[in-house]
Amino acid sequence: MYYIGVDFGGMSIKGGLVNEQGRIVFKCVVPTKPNGSSDSIADDLARLIDTVIKNSSADKLQIGAIGIGFPGTTDAKNGIIRYAANVNFKDYPIVSAINERLSCNLPILISNDANCAALGEAMYGQKKVDNAIFVTLGTGVGTGIIIDGKVFEGFNSMGAEGGHIRLKTGGALCGCGNKGCYEAYASASALIKQTKLAVKKHSGSILAEVSQTEGFTGKTAFIAARKNCPVALALINKYTKYVGDGMISLLNLFGSEYIIVGGGISREGDYFIKPLEEYINRYKYGHDFYPKTKVMAASLYNDAGIIGAAELYKSQSK
Amino acid sequence: MYYIGVDFGGMSIKGGLVNEQGRIVFKCVVPTKPNGSSDSIADDLARLIDTVIKNSSADKLQIGAIGIGFPGTTDAKNGIIRYAANVNFKDYPIVSAINERLSCNLPILISNDANCAALGEAMYGQKKVDNAIFVTLGTGVGTGIIIDGKVFEGFNSMGAEGGHIRLKTGGALCGCGNKGCYEAYASASALIKQTKLAVKKHSGSILAEVSQTEGFTGKTAFIAARKNCPVALALINKYTKYVGDGMISLLNLFGSEYIIVGGGISREGDYFIKPLEEYINRYKYGHDFYPKTKVMAASLYNDAGIIGAAELYKSQSK
Repeated sequence: MYYIGVDFGGMSIKGGLVNEQGRIVFKCVVPTKPNGSSDSIADDLARLIDTVIKNSSADKLQIGAIGIGFPGTTDAKNGIIRYAANVNFKDYPIVSAINERLSCNLPILISNDANCAALGEAMYGQKKVDNAIFVTLGTGVGTGIIIDGKVFEGFNSMGAEGGHIRLKTGGALCGCGNKGCYEAYASASALIKQTKLAVKKHSGSILAEVSQTEGFTGKTAFIAARKNCPVALALINKYTKYVGDGMISLLNLFGSEYIIVGGGISREGDYFIKPLEEYINRYKYGHDFYPKTKVMAASLYNDAGIIGAAELYKSQSK
Repeated sequence: MYYIGVDFGGMSIKGGLVNEQGRIVFKCVVPTKPNGSSDSIADDLARLIDTVIKNSSADKLQIGAIGIGFPGTTDAKNGIIRYAANVNFKDYPIVSAINERLSCNLPILISNDANCAALGEAMYGQKKVDNAIFVTLGTGVGTGIIIDGKVFEGFNSMGAEGGHIRLKTGGALCGCGNKGCYEAYASASALIKQTKLAVKKHSGSILAEVSQTEGFTGKTAFIAARKNCPVALALINKYTKYVGDGMISLLNLFGSEYIIVGGGISREGDYFIKPLEEYINRYKYGHDFYPKTKVMAASLYNDAGIIGAAELYKSQSK
């Protein structure tokens, strides 16, 4: 059996056909219309899914279900997009809209994009784990909670918005309009801001030098740290604490054994993942009697969303 | 059918017989031995339960199960107390210890005390609700999450420790040894600390005057606020934001419609519960498209733990 997974992003819609082992056997992509009406975006989405279906029937592959991950707030139970970031969906019944456009009679499941990526990484990432907290550090901070091999949606799918838990009450302004959110301290964008500030303050540092050739990205501080720049090392140390403190909050509530970190920064093993794991195990609640938490880097990268969305249907039957 | 509920506290062990409507029909209490061995405390606990059983059989009442709430970390699935605050239990198999001491063949369930109180308040408090976040403000901050009428334990019962999520990274020292925990800002003890500081800073205020006659309790600031003391009003305003910010983090993750507030402070309706509800609905993530969150005061007070523990067995079959 094969499953269709769609990763709906602000820039592109990616659809894939995924086999029972979580491997993508066919993939296609169309750009997202940023100013399109909800209905016209649904048209594009349905057409993309239809392409995947046609491709599979040419190969006589049997499809079990369709899963779609959206950026924003989805009401999984009722198949409605409550709100989507950068796309014109507001209380839009996406599942019935696609059903109207396709006549395939396949079950269609939806979830948040970070939830899908979390499911993909937990099932087919570095290690198969049934209980994990997924935290992806990008423009924002996306989180997904996997409990017993299923996505934790929270009441009416209003949960698992870990990027907006408070890290510092009254602190830095977040894109969501509130102050002190985890995302405002721990996203890759926040690290870039912190890097810029450090360069401004320490214009003679190796970090400042590196920024002149490399520019300001999530990697800048790590490149300088590898050159033993004390400014960069201190900056990363502080950033790691921010990331770790938010993960500790999530651990206190969900108690998972595994944390999976996504985003480009997750590839900075010795300079990031390792000290992060040490920090969490030293400062989490109950660190003296709970088992150690294992922190792993995500490994499916950009495919996690497709693979996880394709897995939604199977995970429901667990 | 009747159910036995036990609220195991650092000072006393309270046992009750609870009917199907969540009413306690018989109750008894023994003091907790602070320095007793695990086995001798289990003796006391078993004897207390036996007293409740004998009392019920005298009245020919049928008992369905026993539930016990402990302060600390309980492994509900395996019937083990991992760690208990102020009591000598460490990885102690309490369920088998009680089974050995009683020969009643009743199912015995355990959970954390705040989880039990949460379940009691959600089922039999101001309003019956199947999805709620319970936050009790006392010496610490205890939290319990009710999802679909059941206690949310987290992976291996290591979850729902909301008192120790981060509210202010690197901030005030918490009793748990970490910095910036929710409990260090939002507990009644934290409010008392904040009141003392305000009195020190504003020795001529009405608040300072009130503290001389009333001493320093969780009520001091509210008494002064009712006399229109601007220092007390500002203090409560800040405290309400602390309490609200932690609740917003919990809401972002669990997405519940209801928050139930326990502890003496929860009785300060117009000066606390009402502005707290306003704050949360104004600043929670998705406030512009999610339904309003209702904040309610707990209403079972000291009986919530017994009633909730008695409910554990019934809730499992939901």
